[in-house]
Amino acid sequence: MRRASGRGRAPRCRSRLRRRVLRPCHRRARERRVSAVSSPSATRAAIERLVAPKTIAILGASSDRTKVGALPLSFLRKYGYAGRIFPVNPGSTEIDGLPCYPSVVAVPGTVDLLVVSVPVERVVSALAECEPGKVGVALVLTSGYAEVGAEGAARQAELRRVAHERNIRVCGPNSVGSVNLWNAVVPTISQAFDQTMEPGPIAFVTQSGALGTAVVALGRAAGVKVGHFISTGNEADLDFADFCDYFVDDPGTRVIAGYVEGVRDGRKLATALGRALAAGKPVVLLKVGRSAVGQKAARSHTGALVGADEVYGAVMTRYGAVRVGSIEGLIDALKLFSALPGEMGDRLALLSHSGGTGVLMADVCDDRGLRVPPADEALRARLATRLPSYAAFGNPVDMTANVVFRPRLMVDCLEDALVSPDFDAGLLSVNLIWRAADELADALVELRARQPKPFAVAWIGMPERVTDKLQAGGVPAFPDPVRCVDAVAHAAWWTKIRRSLKDVEPDATPSGRVGTTVPDGYRSQAALLERYGLPLVPWRLATTADEARAAAHAFGYPLVLKAIGGGALLHKSDVSGVALDIAGEAMLVAAFERLAGLVERHAGEGVLVQPMVRGLEAFVGARRDPTFGPVVVVGLGGIYVEVLREVTLRLAPLGREEARAAILGARWSPLLRGARGRKPHDVNALADVLHRVSRLAAELELESLDLNPVMVEDEGRGVAIADFRIMK
Amino acid sequence: MRRASGRGRAPRCRSRLRRRVLRPCHRRARERRVSAVSSPSATRAAIERLVAPKTIAILGASSDRTKVGALPLSFLRKYGYAGRIFPVNPGSTEIDGLPCYPSVVAVPGTVDLLVVSVPVERVVSALAECEPGKVGVALVLTSGYAEVGAEGAARQAELRRVAHERNIRVCGPNSVGSVNLWNAVVPTISQAFDQTMEPGPIAFVTQSGALGTAVVALGRAAGVKVGHFISTGNEADLDFADFCDYFVDDPGTRVIAGYVEGVRDGRKLATALGRALAAGKPVVLLKVGRSAVGQKAARSHTGALVGADEVYGAVMTRYGAVRVGSIEGLIDALKLFSALPGEMGDRLALLSHSGGTGVLMADVCDDRGLRVPPADEALRARLATRLPSYAAFGNPVDMTANVVFRPRLMVDCLEDALVSPDFDAGLLSVNLIWRAADELADALVELRARQPKPFAVAWIGMPERVTDKLQAGGVPAFPDPVRCVDAVAHAAWWTKIRRSLKDVEPDATPSGRVGTTVPDGYRSQAALLERYGLPLVPWRLATTADEARAAAHAFGYPLVLKAIGGGALLHKSDVSGVALDIAGEAMLVAAFERLAGLVERHAGEGVLVQPMVRGLEAFVGARRDPTFGPVVVVGLGGIYVEVLREVTLRLAPLGREEARAAILGARWSPLLRGARGRKPHDVNALADVLHRVSRLAAELELESLDLNPVMVEDEGRGVAIADFRIMK
Repeated sequence: MRRASGRGRAPRCRSRLRRRVLRPCHRRARERRVSAVSSPSATRAAIERLVAPKTIAILGASSDRTKVGALPLSFLRKYGYAGRIFPVNPGSTEIDGLPCYPSVVAVPGTVDLLVVSVPVERVVSALAECEPGKVGVALVLTSGYAEVGAEGAARQAELRRVAHERNIRVCGPNSVGSVNLWNAVVPTISQAFDQTMEPGPIAFVTQSGALGTAVVALGRAAGVKVGHFISTGNEADLDFADFCDYFVDDPGTRVIAGYVEGVRDGRKLATALGRALAAGKPVVLLKVGRSAVGQKAARSHTGALVGADEVYGAVMTRYGAVRVGSIEGLIDALKLFSALPGEMGDRLALLSHSGGTGVLMADVCDDRGLRVPPADEALRARLATRLPSYAAFGNPVDMTANVVFRPRLMVDCLEDALVSPDFDAGLLSVNLIWRAADELADALVELRARQPKPFAVAWIGMPERVTDKLQAGGVPAFPDPVRCVDAVAHAAWWTKIRRSLKDVEPDATPSGRVGTTVPDGYRSQAALLERYGLPLVPWRLATTADEARAAAHAFGYPLVLKAIGGGALLHKSDVSGVALDIAGEAMLVAAFERLAGLVERHAGEGVLVQPMVRGLEAFVGARRDPTFGPVVVVGLGGIYVEVLREVTLRLAPLGREEARAAILGARWSPLLRGARGRKPHDVNALADVLHRVSRLAAELELESLDLNPVMVEDEGRGVAIADFRIMK
Repeated sequence: MRRASGRGRAPRCRSRLRRRVLRPCHRRARERRVSAVSSPSATRAAIERLVAPKTIAILGASSDRTKVGALPLSFLRKYGYAGRIFPVNPGSTEIDGLPCYPSVVAVPGTVDLLVVSVPVERVVSALAECEPGKVGVALVLTSGYAEVGAEGAARQAELRRVAHERNIRVCGPNSVGSVNLWNAVVPTISQAFDQTMEPGPIAFVTQSGALGTAVVALGRAAGVKVGHFISTGNEADLDFADFCDYFVDDPGTRVIAGYVEGVRDGRKLATALGRALAAGKPVVLLKVGRSAVGQKAARSHTGALVGADEVYGAVMTRYGAVRVGSIEGLIDALKLFSALPGEMGDRLALLSHSGGTGVLMADVCDDRGLRVPPADEALRARLATRLPSYAAFGNPVDMTANVVFRPRLMVDCLEDALVSPDFDAGLLSVNLIWRAADELADALVELRARQPKPFAVAWIGMPERVTDKLQAGGVPAFPDPVRCVDAVAHAAWWTKIRRSLKDVEPDATPSGRVGTTVPDGYRSQAALLERYGLPLVPWRLATTADEARAAAHAFGYPLVLKAIGGGALLHKSDVSGVALDIAGEAMLVAAFERLAGLVERHAGEGVLVQPMVRGLEAFVGARRDPTFGPVVVVGLGGIYVEVLREVTLRLAPLGREEARAAILGARWSPLLRGARGRKPHDVNALADVLHRVSRLAAELELESLDLNPVMVEDEGRGVAIADFRIMK
């Protein structure tokens, strides 16, 4: 399929996007499949050796502390790595008290992890020396590969080839390191680890070393603890999805975090996300590059509607991966999920000592789909025993400025709300509270210890000294009420997706029997759709006025006539190739003559005659995405599809039930359900069409398919496809 | 008009919303108008005495530092207020070295500002003693008024009455103070002023003392300087809009900031916002309470579509008030506007040393409507002389990790981009840079001094010590790239609104000749609409089958029939009171009989006969908003209006040009303009209808008016209103 170019903007983040995503991915995927060395179980075993090696050799180790090569060894010693370390450098016999070897081959025994930190021109020869079995996995920190252009890309292909010949899996090149703080495995050049880090329940996989470093450093300041940090570099071999998948089964990891610009194999990512959801491990992703792969210049509606980012978004939504939009948002979500890893309902009690923050939080809850149910009589009565009479006892609870010097009273009110069966979680918002900060922090930590129900705290102007205390005590605390609600909303959303998807087992069906080609010509294409059980509005293709008259006789008036053919006629309305409301024979003949002229001029196939059909106009489309393979969309049809873009996207194939859920979850679905005394439309029939189109998209080699409009009739009366367009 | 109740939620922020907004505002507005003491010029003079008093008396002054009454005096002394201060307290003869007076009356001369900090039961009697002219304005810090319930509300009414009898204007009650740091006027109990504050170009007006205190304290830490801080309290007299209006003309104020839950007189606020925009002073508002005044249970589409928050939103958009959604967002916007007060275009150069942050920023620019044009050859060439060959020279510019220890090189690259004519502003994003932080900050401040073009900095992990240096040097720096882009987007948006509105002079037309009542009955209402020049689809109201036949003869088939009447017939489709596609006489008679039965059953007026009309279905509505008076909406019509809610709102009345701009600015407007070879629709005729409806709404006493659908025909062929509904 044709790849659209960017929206008139110079390609950005040239290096990373090109080196990972903008390569022919089908070919790449097939290439990968042939190699036994990269089977899923081999991949898992390789990552195991990367994150928990018994032996580490460091190629390019140095005793010169000003050199980058010195950093991995220095970090490993600083954190107290307990396995065996073998510095490799032909120029030294001893580094930092350890015997140094002239080559990897010279290192005794097998090497689980080879850290590579030599100049780019020496990397391949060093790997080439190693017999298969000598080295498990190479962490290549060296840069100068695909990120620097075509020459580097060739070097990277060579690196990959040689490594696989020697049975060596690769993390990188151009990685800043792979860190497992639980085992003190810290072979990295990331300055984030200059500060001493304690391990925590988060595994963080990043496609940007610099941004990843910033996240780890900022996270530490916010009390967010990372156990694993993987900089995937250029992903010559092990990639983002491989690591996500690995950490689903890692017992020390409760939350998976990622910075991702694009993946090679979308289905592999989808599978990993689905497995994580099933395992109850939240995945939080900062996905960027929304506008990098152009979404313009597509030749169909589905092409225009379904850009790369829409597919990522749909996959994340489907498999419950929490999407954040900023670095702070990532850290906030991690703070919440690592403190409160369990599920959380969406009914919140809001407490504050300033009416203003209460209203602000309630607004944001509304926006984020969180509920703020009223306090019941019992709770009001309990609060009334603690607070002044002019406090607000509803929800939000305004405890009034009276409580600001009495932190334990605030925490008691919070506990009152938490024990109420009407709430799934509590949010306490406080401002400043500088003098009584420690008392408040202590009381919150004590509450956490005795109260199973989750709560979070927004603390404007929170003193730094209490941040760690709160986080260590399992109390997620945020510097802004809106950020607090946002983080809680992520948890409630994740919980909802997890609970709603009984059929959570991800559909990792590969592209299927792709290869069946789509025929040319209206008749053949219509027949193909009918073979898939797709109900077209009755039609006849007339080439003479008599044939048109015969069709009119068969269908009855009113009729629609359309000029059918390829080229310019594909965009019928652009060339006035449609005649509506044909009410009698005179109109029929006049319209036929006009359209037949068009057909002749454009070497088309004939004039299509169809009865006019009423119903709600829907849109169903399919497309082969370069990363995720076949996808389908369903939405509001007719002229609205281009402008309003009200569409829902799913990976294909999908079952009837999921198709139905996709339709009923859309913003426009009330139109289908029949508001204000109108009859409901036939949702099941539309879901059936979506399901059948998804099979077709998975089985045929096509660029895109538009069914538009699909006329959805009253319940029980089915749907009828009034027009279609197939792009090959 | 009927006021809808909240969405099944207990009223929240009981106190403030009730005390300001949920009172009958028309009555209040009229009450206000009769009083000469509250004329606009008197109001301005009163605020002048509040913020720049020559004499201050403090009723309830105390030498006991643990008492709230001690704070205003202590702050005034600490900041070095240069005017005369008169403590008033019958229990003392001297406080803090100043002679103390037994009563306000005993204070010599006139008192510009009387600070009131005595128990609630003593406030009114103290004011009552003062002859008119003795006291200019009272800042009432005392609480226990409307915020505590009905009894308090009565006290507040009494306070207001007595104050106005004595010609005293009131700020508060339940204010935490009014501060003018330029003049060291700091009569406040807000703990934010415990820390020493320097004045700056921001005037901050807040309806929440606690939240306002937090904003000022947080702002100080972020280098954001407030010159004026006004806590409006319960607004018994001087209100939010009065202060906004005042600061438009205050020479020391360059930016107006506000926390607002609701205002009494929407038109006064709109006028102030319009004046600020014209004066080039950005207004940044944290407006909350979106769901507080219920938007449900309205009896019309317009009622359901036009909730209180939608009107506020439309007014802010119209008059260029920047709306922020969080406290951090408020501080970020103020940081930007106070550092870079001028206008700013929307073409940004993005520079970073990490590809990841560049892509992230570019994504957010896309989302926020900012442009990221490519670097031209000249800029690329200049950058190539500074950066390694594998850097990305497009836009975003990835300077690579190579530059992180060379801050001056980064700043040189930024300057290269700024001097390019392709960009209106630059964004530099850096991560950590801990070692070279001061060098970077210095270089940025120097660049600011020599470069007129604006730039902003995102600095992840920015050390605290450089924050003030940067802000003082006019360099707005943000801790997160997304927050940086958000702030810049506000400035670009504000600039766009300011530039696009040539007719910026706000339309403060009051409600006009309200009082003309709307007649009952279809015929009279249709005649009313026609008198306003609103084009209805031709119609006849038939009460016999013969009359229906005659109408059919006049109009020709196909026809639409509708049962017309009040009560249940107002919701015609709920009772199947519409028959479409009547194609011949037999159908006509059958449909007439059925609908006539309905009309009889519901004591209706008759059966409406109309020709069927084609066109794009639009919606035009009007409503009287309790705060802002008459408003109009225009949007996508037919069945889509309820579900998609694609509507644009404007204050009424509005001219044809603004009506046209409102329509063409909407997301759905491409449907009108005629995409893909379709003919454009008659936008001018739709704009004319919107204009005429806005006049009608301003002149008549009605709750709401729905015109739906308004069939918009091809350009030059006009529009036709197929149905209407008026609620009185």
